[in-house]
Amino acid sequence: MKFHTKYLTFQTKKHREYINITSEVEQALQESDIREGMILVSAMHITAAVYVNDAESGLIQDIDDWLEHLAPYQSDYRHHRTGETNGDSHLKSLLMHHEVIVPVTNGRLDLGPWQQIYYAEFDGQRPKRLIIKVMGA
Amino acid sequence: MKFHTKYLTFQTKKHREYINITSEVEQALQESDIREGMILVSAMHITAAVYVNDAESGLIQDIDDWLEHLAPYQSDYRHHRTGETNGDSHLKSLLMHHEVIVPVTNGRLDLGPWQQIYYAEFDGQRPKRLIIKVMGA
Amino acid sequence: MKFHTKYLTFQTKKHREYINITSEVEQALQESDIREGMILVSAMHITAAVYVNDAESGLIQDIDDWLEHLAPYQSDYRHHRTGETNGDSHLKSLLMHHEVIVPVTNGRLDLGPWQQIYYAEFDGQRPKRLIIKVMGA
Repeated sequence: MKFHTKYLTFQTKKHREYINITSEVEQALQESDIREGMILVSAMHITAAVYVNDAESGLIQDIDDWLEHLAPYQSDYRHHRTGETNGDSHLKSLLMHHEVIVPVTNGRLDLGPWQQIYYAEFDGQRPKRLIIKVMGA
Repeated sequence: MKFHTKYLTFQTKKHREYINITSEVEQALQESDIREGMILVSAMHITAAVYVNDAESGLIQDIDDWLEHLAPYQSDYRHHRTGETNGDSHLKSLLMHHEVIVPVTNGRLDLGPWQQIYYAEFDGQRPKRLIIKVMGA
Repeated sequence: MKFHTKYLTFQTKKHREYINITSEVEQALQESDIREGMILVSAMHITAAVYVNDAESGLIQDIDDWLEHLAPYQSDYRHHRTGETNGDSHLKSLLMHHEVIVPVTNGRLDLGPWQQIYYAEFDGQRPKRLIIKVMGA
């Protein structure tokens, strides 16, 4: 049984940003020398998400609009009494979920034809970490 | 350490459909001869979901209505500039999440009494794949 | 390869409640003697959730308000024709997801600085179970 753990750090230019990390996950898999198993890809912050969907710029803008509609920025979240202003970032993170598990078969990411792995930042412009853990044989 | 990987293909009759796949996942577990571990059940398409909830037809209709309310069909998604018409299917998939992990204990799916595994199709009427990967000992 | 499986039972005083279970998950990890791997933390009921986010009481109230807004209690869910009254609890569970995977590195939960593991009860005041399964080496 083998493990390989890798941390990525993102510092986005924008407050919200969507970054395709499929090639970084593939690289972690190659480094692991694992042929069969699973990869956990998980945001280590509570105002970010990891998801699998399409690498299509129009859809990414649709996702961003939709998240702002369902979990909008508001000044009056109770969380803001702590001095924070990012209540909406937490809710967006919960809506999208902070992690995915990617299957590994024959040494490859076993994804469907359009499945791409994204890191979604909802409170950026500062260093945020993500963990990739490959587990298998 | 053992692995067993299996692919299912669904071609639904309706555009949106909810299919109980618990027995297919149980069968994959039996084939694997694994007694302890985890099973990843993951849609390989970006307009479908896998979730765990109740096998109750009224609730399934409630879920469908609720998804259409929170992630409605609209003609004006930016994604549709590509020629696609399924922007809402992507958003429904993100809301429900595309995968679950099922625990395996003593050679059985270690689910609660009402937990059933569902494949949710949001853009059907064509072949769509799903991966079941059993990992354990 | 090692496994350690543990079940927790919650009986909340309120209908909806949010319980920080990080220390219970840490304890299960210590019992397992596993240094590298993954922990599945999964609700065994279909009206509860497990999520990772902040241990901040204002935010937890924000999350509760937000869930009630997006998946409100209503008398007229089709599911209620069965005699149940908890249609909203199922939808809240689906929105938040019923499980998380926590990475284990060097014998510790490999969480970010503010990541805490929560059990979210949406239909409490009766015994509800959760499974913790540690898998690794």
